[in-house]
Amino acid sequence: MLSSKKKYIVNSNSGIKAQQIQFADQKQEFNKRPTKIGRRSLSRSISQSSTDSYSSAASYTDSSDDETSPRDKQQKNSKGSSDFCVKNIKQAEFGRREIEIAEQEMPALMALRKRAQGEKPLAGAKIVGCTHITAQTAVLMETLGALGAQCRWAACNIYSTLNEVAAALAESGFPVFAWKGESEDDFWWCIDRCVNVEGWQPNMILDDGGDLTHWIYKKYPNMFKKIKGIVEESVTGVHRLYQLSKAGKLCVPAMNVNDSVTKQKFDNLYCCRESILDGLKRTTDMMFGGKQVVVCGYGEVGKGCCAALKAMGSIVYVTEIDPICALQACMDGFRLVKLNEVIRQVDIVITCTGNKNVVTREHLDRMKNSCIVCNMGHSNTEIDVASLRTPELTWERVRSQVDHVIWPDGKRIVLLAEGRLLNLSCSTVPTFVLSITATTQALALIELYNAPEGRYKQDVYLLPKKMDEYVASLHLPTFDAHLTELTDEQAKYLGLNKNGPFKPNYYRY
Amino acid sequence: MLSSKKKYIVNSNSGIKAQQIQFADQKQEFNKRPTKIGRRSLSRSISQSSTDSYSSAASYTDSSDDETSPRDKQQKNSKGSSDFCVKNIKQAEFGRREIEIAEQEMPALMALRKRAQGEKPLAGAKIVGCTHITAQTAVLMETLGALGAQCRWAACNIYSTLNEVAAALAESGFPVFAWKGESEDDFWWCIDRCVNVEGWQPNMILDDGGDLTHWIYKKYPNMFKKIKGIVEESVTGVHRLYQLSKAGKLCVPAMNVNDSVTKQKFDNLYCCRESILDGLKRTTDMMFGGKQVVVCGYGEVGKGCCAALKAMGSIVYVTEIDPICALQACMDGFRLVKLNEVIRQVDIVITCTGNKNVVTREHLDRMKNSCIVCNMGHSNTEIDVASLRTPELTWERVRSQVDHVIWPDGKRIVLLAEGRLLNLSCSTVPTFVLSITATTQALALIELYNAPEGRYKQDVYLLPKKMDEYVASLHLPTFDAHLTELTDEQAKYLGLNKNGPFKPNYYRY
Amino acid sequence: MLSSKKKYIVNSNSGIKAQQIQFADQKQEFNKRPTKIGRRSLSRSISQSSTDSYSSAASYTDSSDDETSPRDKQQKNSKGSSDFCVKNIKQAEFGRREIEIAEQEMPALMALRKRAQGEKPLAGAKIVGCTHITAQTAVLMETLGALGAQCRWAACNIYSTLNEVAAALAESGFPVFAWKGESEDDFWWCIDRCVNVEGWQPNMILDDGGDLTHWIYKKYPNMFKKIKGIVEESVTGVHRLYQLSKAGKLCVPAMNVNDSVTKQKFDNLYCCRESILDGLKRTTDMMFGGKQVVVCGYGEVGKGCCAALKAMGSIVYVTEIDPICALQACMDGFRLVKLNEVIRQVDIVITCTGNKNVVTREHLDRMKNSCIVCNMGHSNTEIDVASLRTPELTWERVRSQVDHVIWPDGKRIVLLAEGRLLNLSCSTVPTFVLSITATTQALALIELYNAPEGRYKQDVYLLPKKMDEYVASLHLPTFDAHLTELTDEQAKYLGLNKNGPFKPNYYRY
Amino acid sequence: MLSSKKKYIVNSNSGIKAQQIQFADQKQEFNKRPTKIGRRSLSRSISQSSTDSYSSAASYTDSSDDETSPRDKQQKNSKGSSDFCVKNIKQAEFGRREIEIAEQEMPALMALRKRAQGEKPLAGAKIVGCTHITAQTAVLMETLGALGAQCRWAACNIYSTLNEVAAALAESGFPVFAWKGESEDDFWWCIDRCVNVEGWQPNMILDDGGDLTHWIYKKYPNMFKKIKGIVEESVTGVHRLYQLSKAGKLCVPAMNVNDSVTKQKFDNLYCCRESILDGLKRTTDMMFGGKQVVVCGYGEVGKGCCAALKAMGSIVYVTEIDPICALQACMDGFRLVKLNEVIRQVDIVITCTGNKNVVTREHLDRMKNSCIVCNMGHSNTEIDVASLRTPELTWERVRSQVDHVIWPDGKRIVLLAEGRLLNLSCSTVPTFVLSITATTQALALIELYNAPEGRYKQDVYLLPKKMDEYVASLHLPTFDAHLTELTDEQAKYLGLNKNGPFKPNYYRY
Repeated sequence: MLSSKKKYIVNSNSGIKAQQIQFADQKQEFNKRPTKIGRRSLSRSISQSSTDSYSSAASYTDSSDDETSPRDKQQKNSKGSSDFCVKNIKQAEFGRREIEIAEQEMPALMALRKRAQGEKPLAGAKIVGCTHITAQTAVLMETLGALGAQCRWAACNIYSTLNEVAAALAESGFPVFAWKGESEDDFWWCIDRCVNVEGWQPNMILDDGGDLTHWIYKKYPNMFKKIKGIVEESVTGVHRLYQLSKAGKLCVPAMNVNDSVTKQKFDNLYCCRESILDGLKRTTDMMFGGKQVVVCGYGEVGKGCCAALKAMGSIVYVTEIDPICALQACMDGFRLVKLNEVIRQVDIVITCTGNKNVVTREHLDRMKNSCIVCNMGHSNTEIDVASLRTPELTWERVRSQVDHVIWPDGKRIVLLAEGRLLNLSCSTVPTFVLSITATTQALALIELYNAPEGRYKQDVYLLPKKMDEYVASLHLPTFDAHLTELTDEQAKYLGLNKNGPFKPNYYRY
Repeated sequence: MLSSKKKYIVNSNSGIKAQQIQFADQKQEFNKRPTKIGRRSLSRSISQSSTDSYSSAASYTDSSDDETSPRDKQQKNSKGSSDFCVKNIKQAEFGRREIEIAEQEMPALMALRKRAQGEKPLAGAKIVGCTHITAQTAVLMETLGALGAQCRWAACNIYSTLNEVAAALAESGFPVFAWKGESEDDFWWCIDRCVNVEGWQPNMILDDGGDLTHWIYKKYPNMFKKIKGIVEESVTGVHRLYQLSKAGKLCVPAMNVNDSVTKQKFDNLYCCRESILDGLKRTTDMMFGGKQVVVCGYGEVGKGCCAALKAMGSIVYVTEIDPICALQACMDGFRLVKLNEVIRQVDIVITCTGNKNVVTREHLDRMKNSCIVCNMGHSNTEIDVASLRTPELTWERVRSQVDHVIWPDGKRIVLLAEGRLLNLSCSTVPTFVLSITATTQALALIELYNAPEGRYKQDVYLLPKKMDEYVASLHLPTFDAHLTELTDEQAKYLGLNKNGPFKPNYYRY
Repeated sequence: MLSSKKKYIVNSNSGIKAQQIQFADQKQEFNKRPTKIGRRSLSRSISQSSTDSYSSAASYTDSSDDETSPRDKQQKNSKGSSDFCVKNIKQAEFGRREIEIAEQEMPALMALRKRAQGEKPLAGAKIVGCTHITAQTAVLMETLGALGAQCRWAACNIYSTLNEVAAALAESGFPVFAWKGESEDDFWWCIDRCVNVEGWQPNMILDDGGDLTHWIYKKYPNMFKKIKGIVEESVTGVHRLYQLSKAGKLCVPAMNVNDSVTKQKFDNLYCCRESILDGLKRTTDMMFGGKQVVVCGYGEVGKGCCAALKAMGSIVYVTEIDPICALQACMDGFRLVKLNEVIRQVDIVITCTGNKNVVTREHLDRMKNSCIVCNMGHSNTEIDVASLRTPELTWERVRSQVDHVIWPDGKRIVLLAEGRLLNLSCSTVPTFVLSITATTQALALIELYNAPEGRYKQDVYLLPKKMDEYVASLHLPTFDAHLTELTDEQAKYLGLNKNGPFKPNYYRY
Repeated sequence: MLSSKKKYIVNSNSGIKAQQIQFADQKQEFNKRPTKIGRRSLSRSISQSSTDSYSSAASYTDSSDDETSPRDKQQKNSKGSSDFCVKNIKQAEFGRREIEIAEQEMPALMALRKRAQGEKPLAGAKIVGCTHITAQTAVLMETLGALGAQCRWAACNIYSTLNEVAAALAESGFPVFAWKGESEDDFWWCIDRCVNVEGWQPNMILDDGGDLTHWIYKKYPNMFKKIKGIVEESVTGVHRLYQLSKAGKLCVPAMNVNDSVTKQKFDNLYCCRESILDGLKRTTDMMFGGKQVVVCGYGEVGKGCCAALKAMGSIVYVTEIDPICALQACMDGFRLVKLNEVIRQVDIVITCTGNKNVVTREHLDRMKNSCIVCNMGHSNTEIDVASLRTPELTWERVRSQVDHVIWPDGKRIVLLAEGRLLNLSCSTVPTFVLSITATTQALALIELYNAPEGRYKQDVYLLPKKMDEYVASLHLPTFDAHLTELTDEQAKYLGLNKNGPFKPNYYRY
């Protein structure tokens, strides 16, 4: 599905083997998931195309001749606690600076902290989390702390942890168990250290991908008696929750924050409108003006890509399978074609479908010399890259994330990120987008934790629209935007509460 | 509500008195409706700002010194039938030409006719209809006929009937009861003539506004035993159906075609993107470049207006009450303000809210000289026009639909269409948009008529997504647009049927 | 040339040969011209597509059963003067209202009036003018008067005079000789009445088309001894002046105000960006979204048309002969094609070339049914309309300015304005654009009148850049635009005078 | 002036000391030039923000433990020639690959090679060149060779030489004298080696910056007797030529290729439209949507920046000193303000003026926290960076090209590239833009070399418009663009030659 498209990523080898971890009954469930390849690379700092950013700090602290596994080290923070496991607690200061910079761009969470100074809506909450460990996550965690929660945290991806940030969190007292380059065994060990604690039992779960939830299901099913709810951010994790629910095995309420309006629009339309340009520029230095481009798929991601390229003077063609989206493409000024009609003439092919094998070897054979091929959609399925691994074709790595695939007659196709997601591999996700997600997560936790008995059953819920609106409202000050309030008379006329929600559930925005 | 905004219109006196029609128990219900003021003016020919179009024909045939009421005339068509009542059967030829021109721009209905030549999906259907009687409706009716249905028809608005078209329909055998300038008594008499027929009983209802449905409820409730369903197009009519349903009084399935994706996008976003420019130009001949504009409301209509004016070089400000729409406005590049912040500096004020008294007398007092004020949203509630009817202000009608309201100090405000809908009063609705609506209606009739027992209960339904997609697909050939088909492998991967529906119900497009 | 495109109107042969006017054989030449109807239709009020505007007033005053020639009438204004000749002096009041409305939209001239209240830069100037007589011209004339000049005026077009405005001018003391529907004889008689006056001899000429200049050359060559200069606005007139200059016959300085930057940009790029949409909507009510359009020519006019249609969701192709403009089209995102490549598929063909027979019968034969064809470029030469006047084709006038040309197989081409200029025939020129022109004319008169002996020879000059800049600066307040001033240090660094001119002559803007 | 803005750059220390080179009479002239700081960084490979590109190859070959000066090495190419001086002839193969890649993106030069295979328009030409030595220059040189010329070449910048490319050129027989990291003494030594050759004397000069020309003037003035002309690309060099011309010292014709239409539009409008986004993203990873931006200056560069940011959803304000450009900004939809009016509210400040101290310390003091400040205009004069070097402000380098300047109250301003040109420091110049320049240079050489005696005097000329058009036409195939040809009849009607030139010299495009 299109809506699942933005959840996968970069570190292509990361989770694959994770499936092999041995729980007899787990295997089958893991196999059902498309694999853990991916999830989003949350931090700009770890984007492969921006390795230069903050690199001095990063490389200094990372270039550790230190080969000892964090699990084998004895570390203490300055307060004497050793209830954490990170690469190097001494990197805390570097991490703190990163967190402070991120705070400046995450005003919504900072506002939440302020508003909640008096009351503590998460007082008593014991949250166990499993997400990417980045500066932005750190801002989220420290916000949860400020709201009254106790947190324990592991990484949801073996490569994405920023060691300095993990160190900073550990230093300030968060039990964090994560480092960059965990083994699969490390991965589950870290998760286990978060939940298997004497004298502490979580009552809330914040998950990204479902591994933490899965672990508790398998190893500590009794814990669910005390758990008030699960907040899950990823498509994969949400998919697993729905399956649990269908199977009647979901034993606590769960909140699907992936499909909230605000998150979807920012993750897809607004973010991709910028990242398609960024990703193409950083990898190819190409000029957009006058280029012919075909965009496969006109969902939110496709709409963003098309709008940006049109604005830069490219001539854009669109392919679609859905007649409604197709008609939208027409009305927005794009020729709707089948890929075959234009494949010989285009300079760039971009996939945004969520589908598989949208660009086949046959298409690749017919492209013209120097055609650029990349994927903005789903995982790495959209371009049939495997079909290019044949003896008659030569691969040449011309720069990071850029391969030339060379045909016997000399024709070169420029393949970006080996068909993985361009925007995550070759661009960065702005902190502002991550702020939307993190705020949504925080509000979902508050909602589930404080909901009166019975409001939520053992099912998967969407974020209440009013909360979605609240996330949006917290981000308006960034733009110095001034919302209008309904008068009493108007609210009555419209049959609305003055504080929202303002739209029916089916409203399309 | 925003979604109701496009349904009202022009002929402000039309239906108001209709309420006075005497059914004891009916009165109260009629009073509940917002009134019949309005509905959309369907035909370009009757748009007040395009009175010159086709005017020779129209005026020739209309300038009837003939004051006789059609009810008092004896007319026969060329086949000898007199089962109709129109202004003048001799105008049939003029009407036929209009219908033929409309056919060229309604390819979807023509395609439906062709596809259905073999089978007759409406064979046996006896449809009674109550809609605007225009060339476009005629194409719909003749399509229904070609699909096997028998039809009887009345007008849903006492002013909107095109007499020539009504004549052409009568001439070709349709029992049509409608003319321009009906009295209220005529109005109900016409409806009654459609349903109260010996030896013929309707089994389907196509309604626009709910008056026909209401009439049958009140007068011939037993008819519903044979009726398979109601298709209702207008916001008002849909509202009444939901009320019936809530009250447990709806005794047949009803299809709400107003909220289908395709119809909504075309009625609002795509249509208004063009009509805001058209309406402003035709009334004021102003230049858009460099003008400062405030658009109140950033729903579909507001989005269309903003996009168009931005593209023409205007500087656009937006006001909103909903933080999600507000955030969209920000990301689309518009300053989000309160009306008061910019009211002194803007050249144009446009309301698109669905709300009431969005522009108050206080705002009007503060506007600068020559400021243009108009309404693209709902009925005539958005601008508090009544507040301008005070002795110290002078009104000067400077051209059709354009008033100067003059303050004591000489300041002039340019009020368009007296605060009624600009796009309906001063612009025209393209046939292509009407084609979308008519096709949706036809498909809804087919669906309801052919649905297996039990698929639809006594409730109000949205058009099945697959049908919505079908409407879209029928309009793609207009743009020479080529849809891509899923391969079997891809359909399986996505878990979709190759023929759709392609999206979950909550998909936002 | 492209640059000449916006100055002609309708009747392509009109003035060029007019130079040869021999008095004896002149009449017959007049007969060759389709009439002088034409040049630009200056007033919105007389635009054929907006005949409804102010129509009550207009028709009231114009529907004169009064068939007497103004030349045969005895009229006096309220001050007792009869030194004028207009249709009906009693219409003065209506005209005054039109002038007052125009004043509100011509702030630059009003500002000039104010600034010049003390000094009178045109004191002593005796200006004879020959232009369209419209409300906007009236504002210009009264400004010249306020600056100290005496004026006498005739119309440059036998159809374009607004009688009410002429009456208002006469009433307030301007010797005006003009009415709508002059004969050719009237035309020259009026001009003669302006210059052939006892005790008054002009020392400045303001001409639009060159007829006034020509008349003085032929009849009163001695007058040039006192004349300080000619200001000419039209392409035709400028062309004639350059020919005179080449031939060594120009005996006073002349100012070509047609090619000033500001005027060119507004007449072409900015004005056409809006009028292409307006003209198409008013004539066809078509929807732009998704339509395929080919624009022939990518000069300023073509750029404006393309930008507007692209913004409205049309798919735009461009044809060009000039590789530089062609490359610009590419970089702006338009497919550059030959007309033949797309002629079968497009929905609209728009010519903006200044060339002839750009759309030939062969192209017309290949267009698809319902294709719309119109001309935004030059006169009526661009589309070979004559080739459509053949027996096998049927012409059908479907509304004002819209013809269906019908092929034997039923195919219909929609031809707008019979191939004449769409923007002038079916749209209106905003007052703001006319304000730019009028201000330029006023400044040119001031410059020539006050120039020190020797600054200008007997040659044709472009408006000094500084004046061009001044025209622009006078229009900035309309947009509440705030110009930045150079500091002394910056001016020195740039080697510029702080008051301009700011750019070298070859600067392209 | 704006037009000079794009000529400066990156390697800030490069040429400064070059002034110290000791020729008594030279010093004073060098002092007159603004300094060599800068010129454009021609190759994407040396852009500081893309150091990762091709870096494996580059670093491999460059990481020479080899500290020997190239002047002290004995090197021969495979054909036995040693008439060159490069870093390491063994790097030739790497350089050849770079050249081959560049060839694919410089189709115009490749087309020139083909067209000239028969004739050799430069047969007999002996060209001495002094430009950046990059893959793109190599394509130019090899094209000149293919056209019949003999070439000798030095670098115009001590840092910009790509050693591998220089090696490849030497290997294929070009006498090249250049390496990365020359000393000033090396710099002039290399130039001297190009011109001071026994038995070979140049008859054409291709210069970028004027140093080569200067050297010959000073050391070998007699050479000019045989020199047919100079082609100069840079603003600085052109400026020096005009000074020579004014002083009556220019003794051969010179061609100013900097001001050709095509080059200007690509260097400024089209290139900056893309590089502003690229530069901001690579340095800050910011999101453009909803950001408030002020762009100082609305020339070609400003127009490009504004268009791009508006398209990405930013809210853009413009400042201008020139009322004509200001009016254009208004009509294009931007609020025209003074910097002070918006300085407190904007998120980004971009200078594109060509002026100095446009952003002063006072402005910087008033900006809000996190405001980004950068320069797209001229050299490093526009932002008063020096004013930030005061004790109370702390500078923090947060990544390459990004400094935080921190006020005592904690406010941070994000200064990019220390106020130098963002697009050159933090973005890359697409090969396509360089192709336009190189083709222009080649055509200018051909024109000057083949011009009949007397066509060009000892003066500075602009490229003939026909050549400018030819450059454009050679780049159209890249876009699969098809030019329309005039018919004989049309050419006659327009008074044009069918092959151009198509526009008068003052045409503004």
